[in-house]
Amino acid sequence: MTRENLIQFIRQRNSYLCVGLDTDIELLPPHLLKGSDPVFEFNKAIIDATRAYCVAYKINTAFYEAMGAAGWSIMEKTVAYIGKEHFLIADAKRGDIGNTSRQYARAFFDTLPFDAITVAPYMGKDSVTPFLEFPDKWTIVLGLTSNPGAADFEMLSTSNGLLYEQVLKKVSSWGSPDNLMFVVGATQADSFTHIRSICPSHFLLVPGVGAQGGSLKEISLKAMNDDIGILVNVSRAIIYASSKEDFAQAAADAAKAYQQEMSLYL
Amino acid sequence: MTRENLIQFIRQRNSYLCVGLDTDIELLPPHLLKGSDPVFEFNKAIIDATRAYCVAYKINTAFYEAMGAAGWSIMEKTVAYIGKEHFLIADAKRGDIGNTSRQYARAFFDTLPFDAITVAPYMGKDSVTPFLEFPDKWTIVLGLTSNPGAADFEMLSTSNGLLYEQVLKKVSSWGSPDNLMFVVGATQADSFTHIRSICPSHFLLVPGVGAQGGSLKEISLKAMNDDIGILVNVSRAIIYASSKEDFAQAAADAAKAYQQEMSLYL
Repeated sequence: MTRENLIQFIRQRNSYLCVGLDTDIELLPPHLLKGSDPVFEFNKAIIDATRAYCVAYKINTAFYEAMGAAGWSIMEKTVAYIGKEHFLIADAKRGDIGNTSRQYARAFFDTLPFDAITVAPYMGKDSVTPFLEFPDKWTIVLGLTSNPGAADFEMLSTSNGLLYEQVLKKVSSWGSPDNLMFVVGATQADSFTHIRSICPSHFLLVPGVGAQGGSLKEISLKAMNDDIGILVNVSRAIIYASSKEDFAQAAADAAKAYQQEMSLYL
Repeated sequence: MTRENLIQFIRQRNSYLCVGLDTDIELLPPHLLKGSDPVFEFNKAIIDATRAYCVAYKINTAFYEAMGAAGWSIMEKTVAYIGKEHFLIADAKRGDIGNTSRQYARAFFDTLPFDAITVAPYMGKDSVTPFLEFPDKWTIVLGLTSNPGAADFEMLSTSNGLLYEQVLKKVSSWGSPDNLMFVVGATQADSFTHIRSICPSHFLLVPGVGAQGGSLKEISLKAMNDDIGILVNVSRAIIYASSKEDFAQAAADAAKAYQQEMSLYL
Protein backbone atom coordinates (compact mmCIF):
# COMPACT_ATOMS: atom_id res chain seq x y z
CA MET A 1 0.00 0.00 0.00
CA THR A 2 1.34 3.43 -0.88
CA ARG A 3 1.47 6.39 1.48
CA GLU A 4 -1.18 8.10 -0.68
CA ASN A 5 -3.53 5.11 -0.31
CA LEU A 6 -3.04 5.06 3.44
CA ILE A 7 -3.74 8.79 3.79
CA GLN A 8 -6.80 8.38 1.59
CA PHE A 9 -8.17 5.61 3.86
CA ILE A 10 -7.62 7.83 6.90
CA ARG A 11 -9.43 10.80 5.34
CA GLN A 12 -12.29 8.65 4.04
CA ARG A 13 -12.94 6.99 7.40
CA ASN A 14 -12.01 9.95 9.58
CA SER A 15 -9.90 7.55 11.57
CA TYR A 16 -6.27 6.70 12.21
CA LEU A 17 -7.20 3.76 14.42
CA CYS A 18 -5.34 0.47 14.20
CA VAL A 19 -7.04 -2.47 15.91
CA GLY A 20 -4.58 -4.91 17.46
CA LEU A 21 -5.53 -8.56 17.15
CA ASP A 22 -3.60 -9.86 20.17
CA THR A 23 -6.00 -12.77 20.38
CA ASP A 24 -5.37 -14.91 23.45
CA ILE A 25 -7.41 -18.11 23.59
CA GLU A 26 -7.49 -17.81 27.40
CA LEU A 27 -9.31 -14.48 27.17
CA LEU A 28 -12.01 -15.46 24.68
CA PRO A 29 -15.69 -15.23 25.60
CA PRO A 30 -16.45 -18.71 26.98
CA HIS A 31 -19.32 -19.42 24.58
CA LEU A 32 -16.91 -19.32 21.60
CA LEU A 33 -14.86 -22.19 22.99
CA LYS A 34 -17.56 -24.66 21.99
CA GLY A 35 -16.83 -24.07 18.30
CA SER A 36 -14.15 -25.83 16.25
CA ASP A 37 -12.06 -22.73 15.49
CA PRO A 38 -12.73 -20.25 18.31
CA VAL A 39 -9.77 -17.93 17.73
CA PHE A 40 -10.60 -17.39 14.06
CA GLU A 41 -14.32 -17.02 14.85
CA PHE A 42 -13.42 -14.38 17.43
CA ASN A 43 -11.17 -12.54 14.95
CA LYS A 44 -13.85 -12.60 12.24
CA ALA A 45 -16.45 -11.15 14.60
CA ILE A 46 -14.04 -8.46 15.82
CA ILE A 47 -13.05 -7.55 12.24
CA ASP A 48 -16.66 -7.33 11.07
CA ALA A 49 -17.52 -5.19 14.10
CA THR A 50 -14.61 -2.76 13.71
CA ARG A 51 -13.91 -2.52 9.93
CA ALA A 52 -15.79 0.74 9.49
CA TYR A 53 -13.98 2.52 12.31
CA CYS A 54 -10.34 1.66 11.64
CA VAL A 55 -7.80 1.96 8.84
CA ALA A 56 -5.39 -0.73 9.98
CA TYR A 57 -5.18 -4.08 11.74
CA LYS A 58 -2.10 -5.19 13.62
CA ILE A 59 -1.55 -8.88 14.17
CA ASN A 60 0.68 -9.64 17.12
CA THR A 61 2.44 -12.77 15.86
CA ALA A 62 3.37 -13.98 19.36
CA PHE A 63 -0.22 -14.87 20.21
CA TYR A 64 -0.51 -17.04 17.08
CA GLU A 65 2.90 -18.67 17.44
CA ALA A 66 1.92 -19.71 20.97
CA MET A 67 -0.62 -22.04 19.28
CA GLY A 68 1.99 -23.60 16.97
CA ALA A 69 1.39 -24.37 13.29
CA ALA A 70 -2.37 -24.21 13.91
CA GLY A 71 -1.94 -20.65 15.13
CA TRP A 72 0.05 -19.74 12.05
CA SER A 73 -2.84 -21.04 9.93
CA ILE A 74 -5.27 -18.87 11.90
CA MET A 75 -3.04 -15.88 11.19
CA GLU A 76 -3.12 -16.70 7.46
CA LYS A 77 -6.92 -16.99 7.49
CA THR A 78 -7.29 -13.79 9.48
CA VAL A 79 -5.12 -11.82 7.07
CA ALA A 80 -7.15 -13.13 4.12
CA TYR A 81 -10.40 -12.26 5.89
CA ILE A 82 -9.34 -8.66 6.50
CA GLY A 83 -8.79 -8.12 2.78
CA LYS A 84 -7.35 -5.13 0.94
CA GLU A 85 -9.24 -2.21 2.43
CA HIS A 86 -7.09 -1.96 5.56
CA PHE A 87 -3.40 -1.46 6.18
CA LEU A 88 -2.10 -4.78 7.49
CA ILE A 89 0.68 -4.80 10.05
CA ALA A 90 2.59 -7.88 11.22
CA ASP A 91 3.72 -6.92 14.71
CA ALA A 92 6.57 -9.37 14.69
CA LYS A 93 9.60 -7.40 15.97
CA ARG A 94 11.93 -9.33 13.65
CA GLY A 95 15.50 -8.50 12.62
CA ASP A 96 18.59 -10.63 11.91
CA ILE A 97 21.62 -10.78 9.60
CA GLY A 98 20.85 -9.91 5.97
CA ASN A 99 20.15 -13.35 4.52
CA THR A 100 17.83 -14.12 7.44
CA SER A 101 15.98 -10.79 7.43
CA ARG A 102 15.37 -11.47 3.74
CA GLN A 103 13.57 -14.70 4.73
CA TYR A 104 11.47 -12.83 7.31
CA ALA A 105 10.56 -10.28 4.63
CA ARG A 106 9.48 -13.13 2.34
CA ALA A 107 7.43 -14.65 5.18
CA PHE A 108 5.43 -11.49 5.86
CA PHE A 109 5.40 -9.73 2.47
CA ASP A 110 5.27 -12.62 -0.02
CA THR A 111 3.92 -15.73 1.71
CA LEU A 112 1.60 -13.61 3.83
CA PRO A 113 0.33 -10.39 2.20
CA PHE A 114 1.05 -7.93 5.02
CA ASP A 115 1.66 -4.28 4.12
CA ALA A 116 4.07 -3.73 6.99
CA ILE A 117 6.20 -5.46 9.60
CA THR A 118 7.69 -4.18 12.86
CA VAL A 119 11.48 -4.59 13.04
CA ALA A 120 13.94 -4.34 15.94
CA PRO A 121 16.98 -2.15 15.13
CA TYR A 122 19.66 -3.58 17.43
CA MET A 123 21.57 -5.45 14.68
CA GLY A 124 21.84 -2.41 12.42
CA LYS A 125 21.61 -1.63 8.74
CA ASP A 126 21.88 -5.02 7.05
CA SER A 127 19.18 -6.35 9.41
CA VAL A 128 16.73 -3.63 8.33
CA THR A 129 17.36 -2.95 4.64
CA PRO A 130 16.14 -6.34 3.30
CA PHE A 131 12.63 -5.33 4.41
CA LEU A 132 12.92 -1.95 2.67
CA GLU A 133 13.58 -3.55 -0.71
CA PHE A 134 9.96 -4.66 -1.22
CA PRO A 135 7.95 -2.13 -3.27
CA ASP A 136 4.83 -0.71 -1.60
CA LYS A 137 5.70 -2.51 1.65
CA TRP A 138 6.54 -0.78 4.93
CA THR A 139 9.16 -1.34 7.60
CA ILE A 140 8.16 -0.08 11.04
CA VAL A 141 11.29 0.17 13.16
CA LEU A 142 11.19 0.33 16.96
CA GLY A 143 12.04 3.83 18.13
CA LEU A 144 10.90 4.56 21.68
CA THR A 145 8.60 1.84 22.95
CA SER A 146 5.74 2.05 25.44
CA ASN A 147 7.03 -0.35 28.07
CA PRO A 148 9.02 0.32 31.27
CA GLY A 149 12.08 -1.42 29.78
CA ALA A 150 12.39 1.43 27.25
CA ALA A 151 14.46 3.13 29.95
CA ASP A 152 17.08 0.36 29.98
CA PHE A 153 18.69 0.84 26.56
CA GLU A 154 16.50 3.01 24.31
CA MET A 155 17.01 5.99 26.64
CA LEU A 156 20.72 5.47 27.24
CA SER A 157 22.90 8.51 26.64
CA THR A 158 25.24 8.00 23.70
CA SER A 159 27.96 10.20 22.29
CA ASN A 160 25.27 11.83 20.13
CA GLY A 161 21.96 11.93 22.03
CA LEU A 162 19.85 9.12 23.45
CA LEU A 163 20.02 5.74 21.76
CA TYR A 164 16.47 5.95 20.36
CA GLU A 165 17.30 9.35 18.84
CA GLN A 166 20.30 7.80 17.11
CA VAL A 167 18.04 5.00 15.87
CA LEU A 168 15.52 7.47 14.44
CA LYS A 169 18.23 9.49 12.71
CA LYS A 170 20.28 6.65 11.33
CA VAL A 171 17.39 4.43 10.24
CA SER A 172 15.73 7.42 8.53
CA SER A 173 18.70 7.56 6.17
CA TRP A 174 18.12 3.94 5.08
CA GLY A 175 14.56 4.44 3.80
CA SER A 176 12.10 7.23 3.18
CA PRO A 177 8.78 8.41 4.64
CA ASP A 178 7.22 6.35 1.82
CA ASN A 179 8.42 2.99 3.15
CA LEU A 180 9.53 3.54 6.72
CA MET A 181 7.66 4.25 9.95
CA PHE A 182 8.69 4.21 13.59
CA VAL A 183 7.10 2.74 16.70
CA VAL A 184 6.72 5.36 19.43
CA GLY A 185 4.72 4.39 22.50
CA ALA A 186 1.79 6.54 23.63
CA THR A 187 3.16 6.40 27.17
CA GLN A 188 6.11 8.51 25.94
CA ALA A 189 3.97 11.61 25.29
CA ASP A 190 6.60 13.95 26.74
CA SER A 191 8.96 12.98 23.94
CA PHE A 192 6.63 13.37 20.95
CA THR A 193 7.42 17.02 20.16
CA HIS A 194 11.12 16.23 20.21
CA ILE A 195 10.61 13.10 18.09
CA ARG A 196 8.69 15.15 15.53
CA SER A 197 11.68 17.49 15.26
CA ILE A 198 13.81 14.48 14.27
CA CYS A 199 11.22 12.79 12.01
CA PRO A 200 8.78 15.45 10.80
CA SER A 201 7.43 13.43 7.87
CA HIS A 202 7.39 9.78 8.90
CA PHE A 203 4.28 8.00 10.01
CA LEU A 204 4.48 6.85 13.61
CA LEU A 205 2.80 3.67 14.83
CA VAL A 206 1.67 4.47 18.35
CA PRO A 207 0.75 1.60 20.68
CA GLY A 208 0.02 2.04 24.34
CA VAL A 209 -3.38 3.77 24.28
CA GLY A 210 -5.92 1.81 26.35
CA ALA A 211 -4.62 -0.94 28.61
CA GLN A 212 -1.16 0.67 28.80
CA GLY A 213 -2.59 4.07 29.75
CA GLY A 214 -1.48 6.52 27.01
CA SER A 215 -3.72 9.51 26.19
CA LEU A 216 -5.19 9.64 22.68
CA LYS A 217 -5.73 13.38 22.90
CA GLU A 218 -2.24 14.20 24.03
CA ILE A 219 -0.44 12.11 21.43
CA SER A 220 -2.77 13.26 18.66
CA LEU A 221 -2.10 16.92 19.41
CA LYS A 222 1.64 16.44 19.73
CA ALA A 223 2.39 13.87 17.02
CA MET A 224 0.18 14.60 14.02
CA ASN A 225 1.69 16.26 10.96
CA ASP A 226 0.22 17.65 7.71
CA ASP A 227 -0.31 14.13 6.37
CA ILE A 228 -1.81 13.01 9.70
CA GLY A 229 1.31 10.92 10.24
CA ILE A 230 0.13 8.63 13.02
CA LEU A 231 -1.59 5.29 13.38
CA VAL A 232 -2.79 4.72 16.92
CA ASN A 233 -3.09 1.11 17.94
CA VAL A 234 -5.55 -0.15 20.52
CA SER A 235 -5.67 -3.85 21.26
CA ARG A 236 -7.07 -5.03 24.57
CA ALA A 237 -9.41 -2.06 25.21
CA ILE A 238 -11.27 -2.93 21.99
CA ILE A 239 -11.06 -6.69 21.51
CA TYR A 240 -11.70 -7.49 25.17
CA ALA A 241 -14.21 -4.68 25.80
CA SER A 242 -16.61 -7.43 26.89
CA SER A 243 -15.95 -11.07 27.73
CA LYS A 244 -19.59 -12.06 27.20
CA GLU A 245 -21.78 -12.87 24.21
CA ASP A 246 -21.94 -9.16 23.35
CA PHE A 247 -18.16 -8.95 22.79
CA ALA A 248 -18.46 -7.95 19.11
CA GLN A 249 -20.94 -5.16 19.80
CA ALA A 250 -18.78 -3.98 22.69
CA ALA A 251 -15.74 -3.96 20.39
CA ALA A 252 -17.69 -1.99 17.79
CA ASP A 253 -18.75 0.54 20.42
CA ALA A 254 -15.20 0.92 21.73
CA ALA A 255 -13.73 1.29 18.22
CA LYS A 256 -16.43 3.78 17.26
CA ALA A 257 -15.68 5.86 20.36
CA TYR A 258 -11.99 6.02 19.43
CA GLN A 259 -12.90 6.89 15.81
CA GLN A 260 -15.24 9.66 16.92
CA GLU A 261 -12.61 11.14 19.21
CA MET A 262 -10.08 10.94 16.35
CA SER A 263 -12.46 12.75 14.01
CA LEU A 264 -12.24 15.74 16.36
CA TYR A 265 -8.47 15.93 15.92
CA LEU A 266 -8.45 15.49 12.14
CA MET B 1 18.27 -28.65 29.97
CA THR B 2 20.52 -27.71 32.89
CA ARG B 3 24.00 -26.25 32.57
CA GLU B 4 25.39 -29.49 34.02
CA ASN B 5 23.66 -31.56 31.32
CA LEU B 6 24.96 -29.30 28.59
CA ILE B 7 28.53 -29.47 29.87
CA GLN B 8 28.20 -33.24 30.16
CA PHE B 9 27.12 -33.50 26.50
CA ILE B 10 30.09 -31.39 25.47
CA ARG B 11 32.56 -33.53 27.39
CA GLN B 12 31.02 -36.81 26.20
CA ARG B 13 31.11 -35.84 22.53
CA ASN B 14 34.27 -33.74 22.69
CA SER B 15 32.38 -31.08 20.81
CA TYR B 16 30.84 -27.68 21.33
CA LEU B 17 29.45 -27.62 17.79
CA CYS B 18 25.96 -26.34 17.09
CA VAL B 19 24.59 -27.16 13.64
CA GLY B 20 22.38 -24.44 12.23
CA LEU B 21 19.37 -25.67 10.30
CA ASP B 22 18.87 -22.59 8.08
CA THR B 23 17.14 -24.77 5.54
CA ASP B 24 16.31 -22.87 2.35
CA ILE B 25 14.20 -24.78 -0.14
CA GLU B 26 15.99 -22.98 -2.97
CA LEU B 27 19.32 -24.44 -1.88
CA LEU B 28 18.26 -28.08 -1.51
CA PRO B 29 19.92 -30.81 -3.58
CA PRO B 30 17.68 -31.02 -6.65
CA HIS B 31 16.95 -34.75 -6.29
CA LEU B 32 15.12 -34.10 -2.98
CA LEU B 33 12.58 -31.82 -4.64
CA LYS B 34 10.85 -34.86 -6.17
CA GLY B 35 9.65 -35.98 -2.71
CA SER B 36 6.53 -34.76 -0.94
CA ASP B 37 8.31 -33.11 2.02
CA PRO B 38 11.77 -32.13 0.79
CA VAL B 39 12.70 -29.68 3.56
CA PHE B 40 11.94 -32.18 6.33
CA GLU B 41 13.66 -35.00 4.41
CA PHE B 42 16.73 -32.77 4.08
CA ASN B 43 16.67 -31.91 7.80
CA LYS B 44 16.31 -35.57 8.79
CA ALA B 45 19.28 -36.57 6.65
CA ILE B 46 21.40 -33.70 8.00
CA ILE B 47 20.47 -34.54 11.60
CA ASP B 48 21.27 -38.24 11.18
CA ALA B 49 24.57 -37.34 9.54
CA THR B 50 25.68 -34.85 12.20
CA ARG B 51 24.18 -36.08 15.51
CA ALA B 52 27.36 -37.71 16.71
CA TYR B 53 29.50 -34.62 16.13
CA CYS B 54 27.43 -31.84 17.67
CA VAL B 55 25.83 -31.00 21.00
CA ALA B 56 23.24 -28.52 19.74
CA TYR B 57 20.98 -27.70 16.82
CA LYS B 58 19.86 -24.17 16.05
CA ILE B 59 16.71 -23.69 14.03
CA ASN B 60 16.58 -20.34 12.26
CA THR B 61 12.85 -19.65 12.40
CA ALA B 62 12.91 -17.19 9.47
CA PHE B 63 13.54 -19.96 6.96
CA TYR B 64 10.50 -21.90 8.18
CA GLU B 65 8.20 -18.87 8.46
CA ALA B 66 9.00 -18.05 4.83
CA MET B 67 7.07 -21.24 3.98
CA GLY B 68 4.02 -20.22 6.04
CA ALA B 69 2.05 -22.60 8.26
CA ALA B 70 3.54 -25.54 6.36
CA GLY B 71 7.00 -24.32 7.36
CA TRP B 72 5.98 -24.06 10.99
CA SER B 73 4.85 -27.71 10.82
CA ILE B 74 8.22 -28.70 9.40
CA MET B 75 9.88 -26.89 12.31
CA GLU B 76 7.70 -28.87 14.75
CA LYS B 77 8.57 -32.18 13.08
CA THR B 78 12.26 -31.30 12.97
CA VAL B 79 12.38 -30.46 16.68
CA ALA B 80 10.65 -33.76 17.50
CA TYR B 81 13.06 -35.66 15.26
CA ILE B 82 16.13 -34.19 16.97
CA GLY B 83 14.95 -35.50 20.36
CA LYS B 84 16.38 -34.96 23.82
CA GLU B 85 20.07 -35.67 23.34
CA HIS B 86 20.90 -32.25 21.90
CA PHE B 87 20.50 -28.69 23.14
CA LEU B 88 17.76 -27.16 20.99
CA ILE B 89 17.95 -23.48 20.11
CA ALA B 90 15.18 -21.46 18.46
CA ASP B 91 17.09 -18.72 16.68
CA ALA B 92 14.10 -16.41 16.63
CA LYS B 93 15.45 -13.00 17.81
CA ARG B 94 12.16 -12.26 19.59
CA GLY B 95 11.41 -9.61 22.23
CA ASP B 96 8.38 -7.40 22.96
CA ILE B 97 6.44 -5.92 25.89
CA GLY B 98 5.96 -8.30 28.82
CA ASN B 99 2.61 -9.86 27.97
CA THR B 100 3.80 -10.49 24.40
CA SER B 101 7.22 -11.88 25.30
CA ARG B 102 5.34 -14.27 27.59
CA GLN B 103 3.46 -15.56 24.51
CA TYR B 104 6.73 -15.99 22.60
CA ALA B 105 8.13 -17.92 25.56
CA ARG B 106 5.06 -20.17 25.49
CA ALA B 107 5.48 -20.66 21.74
CA PHE B 108 9.07 -21.86 21.96
CA PHE B 109 9.27 -23.42 25.45
CA ASP B 110 5.80 -24.96 25.90
CA THR B 111 4.17 -25.49 22.50
CA LEU B 112 7.56 -26.33 20.96
CA PRO B 113 10.06 -28.01 23.30
CA PHE B 114 13.12 -25.84 22.62
CA ASP B 115 15.75 -25.52 25.34
CA ALA B 116 16.67 -21.97 24.36
CA ILE B 117 15.59 -18.96 22.34
CA THR B 118 17.55 -15.98 21.03
CA VAL B 119 16.18 -12.63 22.21
CA ALA B 120 16.83 -9.03 21.07
CA PRO B 121 17.51 -6.66 23.99
CA TYR B 122 16.40 -3.28 22.56
CA MET B 123 13.12 -3.10 24.55
CA GLY B 124 14.79 -3.76 27.90
CA LYS B 125 14.06 -5.72 31.04
CA ASP B 126 10.35 -6.56 30.78
CA SER B 127 10.93 -7.82 27.22
CA VAL B 128 13.59 -10.30 28.42
CA THR B 129 12.51 -11.51 31.87
CA PRO B 130 9.39 -13.46 30.75
CA PHE B 131 11.74 -15.90 28.99
CA LEU B 132 13.88 -16.27 32.11
CA GLU B 133 10.95 -17.47 34.21
CA PHE B 134 10.85 -20.95 32.62
CA PRO B 135 12.80 -23.53 34.64
CA ASP B 136 15.62 -25.31 32.80
CA LYS B 137 15.11 -23.09 29.75
CA TRP B 138 17.66 -20.63 28.39
CA THR B 139 17.48 -17.08 27.10
CA ILE B 140 20.24 -16.19 24.65
CA VAL B 141 20.41 -12.41 24.38
CA LEU B 142 22.08 -10.63 21.47
CA GLY B 143 25.35 -9.08 22.62
CA LEU B 144 27.74 -8.28 19.78
CA THR B 145 26.55 -9.83 16.54
CA SER B 146 28.57 -11.07 13.57
CA ASN B 147 27.15 -8.82 10.86
CA PRO B 148 28.44 -5.47 9.51
CA GLY B 149 25.43 -3.68 11.04
CA ALA B 150 26.80 -4.45 14.52
CA ALA B 151 28.75 -1.20 14.08
CA ASP B 152 25.57 0.91 13.76
CA PHE B 153 24.16 0.65 17.28
CA GLU B 154 25.80 -2.22 19.20
CA MET B 155 29.16 -0.44 19.08
CA LEU B 156 27.88 3.06 19.84
CA SER B 157 29.63 4.86 22.68
CA THR B 158 27.33 5.42 25.63
CA SER B 159 27.88 7.21 28.91
CA ASN B 160 29.22 3.93 30.27
CA GLY B 161 31.04 2.02 27.53
CA LEU B 162 29.79 0.68 24.21
CA LEU B 163 26.11 -0.23 23.93
CA TYR B 164 26.77 -3.98 23.71
CA GLU B 165 28.88 -3.77 26.88
CA GLN B 166 25.97 -2.12 28.66
CA VAL B 167 23.71 -4.87 27.34
CA LEU B 168 26.02 -7.61 28.65
CA LYS B 169 26.29 -5.96 32.07
CA LYS B 170 22.66 -5.04 32.57
CA VAL B 171 21.14 -8.24 31.16
CA SER B 172 23.54 -10.32 33.30
CA SER B 173 21.84 -8.88 36.38
CA TRP B 174 18.42 -10.17 35.21
CA GLY B 175 19.40 -13.85 35.03
CA SER B 176 22.30 -16.11 35.90
CA PRO B 177 24.86 -18.20 34.04
CA ASP B 178 22.41 -21.07 34.58
CA ASN B 179 19.67 -19.62 32.37
CA LEU B 180 21.27 -16.86 30.32
CA MET B 181 23.71 -16.86 27.43
CA PHE B 182 24.85 -14.17 24.99
CA VAL B 183 25.29 -14.14 21.23
CA VAL B 184 28.75 -12.95 20.25
CA GLY B 185 29.73 -13.24 16.60
CA ALA B 186 32.89 -15.09 15.62
CA THR B 187 33.79 -12.17 13.34
CA GLN B 188 34.27 -10.07 16.51
CA ALA B 189 37.32 -12.03 17.67
CA ASP B 190 39.17 -8.88 18.77
CA SER B 191 36.51 -8.27 21.40
CA PHE B 192 36.34 -11.74 22.98
CA THR B 193 38.96 -11.19 25.69
CA HIS B 194 37.22 -7.99 26.75
CA ILE B 195 33.79 -9.70 26.64
CA ARG B 196 35.12 -12.48 28.87
CA SER B 197 36.16 -9.85 31.41
CA ILE B 198 32.50 -8.70 31.55
CA CYS B 199 30.91 -12.16 31.46
CA PRO B 200 33.43 -14.69 32.72
CA SER B 201 30.91 -17.44 33.47
CA HIS B 202 28.17 -17.22 30.85
CA PHE B 203 27.99 -19.52 27.88
CA LEU B 204 28.36 -17.64 24.59
CA LEU B 205 26.60 -18.72 21.41
CA VAL B 206 29.04 -17.92 18.64
CA PRO B 207 27.74 -17.78 15.07
CA GLY B 208 29.80 -16.59 12.14
CA VAL B 209 32.28 -19.45 11.67
CA GLY B 210 32.15 -20.79 8.12
CA ALA B 211 30.27 -18.72 5.53
CA GLN B 212 30.76 -15.51 7.52
CA GLY B 213 34.51 -16.07 7.91
CA GLY B 214 35.19 -16.29 11.68
CA SER B 215 38.12 -18.42 12.90
CA LEU B 216 37.25 -21.40 15.10
CA LYS B 217 40.75 -21.51 16.54
CA GLU B 218 40.89 -17.85 17.47
CA ILE B 219 37.51 -17.71 19.16
CA SER B 220 38.08 -21.02 20.96
CA LEU B 221 41.36 -19.83 22.43
CA LYS B 222 39.97 -16.44 23.44
CA ALA B 223 36.46 -17.30 24.60
CA MET B 224 36.53 -20.66 26.39
CA ASN B 225 36.28 -20.74 30.17
CA ASP B 226 36.64 -23.50 32.78
CA ASP B 227 33.19 -24.89 31.88
CA ILE B 228 34.00 -24.62 28.15
CA GLY B 229 31.47 -21.80 27.95
CA ILE B 230 30.96 -21.60 24.20
CA LEU B 231 28.71 -23.14 21.60
CA VAL B 232 29.99 -22.49 18.10
CA ASN B 233 27.34 -22.50 15.41
CA VAL B 234 28.01 -23.47 11.82
CA SER B 235 25.12 -23.46 9.37
CA ARG B 236 25.83 -23.12 5.66
CA ALA B 237 29.34 -24.63 5.71
CA ILE B 238 27.86 -27.89 7.02
CA ILE B 239 24.35 -28.20 5.64
CA TYR B 240 25.31 -27.02 2.15
CA ALA B 241 28.72 -28.71 2.04
CA SER B 242 27.47 -30.45 -1.11
CA SER B 243 24.46 -29.71 -3.27
CA LYS B 244 24.47 -33.18 -4.80
CA GLU B 245 23.21 -36.61 -3.76
CA ASP B 246 26.13 -36.94 -1.33
CA PHE B 247 24.97 -33.91 0.71
CA ALA B 248 24.46 -35.89 3.93
CA GLN B 249 27.87 -37.51 3.79
CA ALA B 250 29.44 -34.14 2.98
CA ALA B 251 27.65 -32.62 5.98
CA ALA B 252 28.89 -35.47 8.19
CA ASP B 253 32.45 -34.93 6.97
CA ALA B 254 32.25 -31.17 7.57
CA ALA B 255 30.74 -31.58 11.04
CA LYS B 256 33.31 -34.22 11.94
CA ALA B 257 36.14 -31.92 10.85
CA TYR B 258 34.83 -29.17 13.13
CA GLN B 259 34.40 -31.66 15.99
CA GLN B 260 37.93 -32.96 15.57
CA GLU B 261 39.37 -29.47 15.57
CA MET B 262 37.29 -28.67 18.68
CA SER B 263 38.62 -31.77 20.45
CA LEU B 264 42.09 -30.22 20.18
CA TYR B 265 40.99 -27.15 22.12
CA LEU B 266 39.07 -29.01 24.85
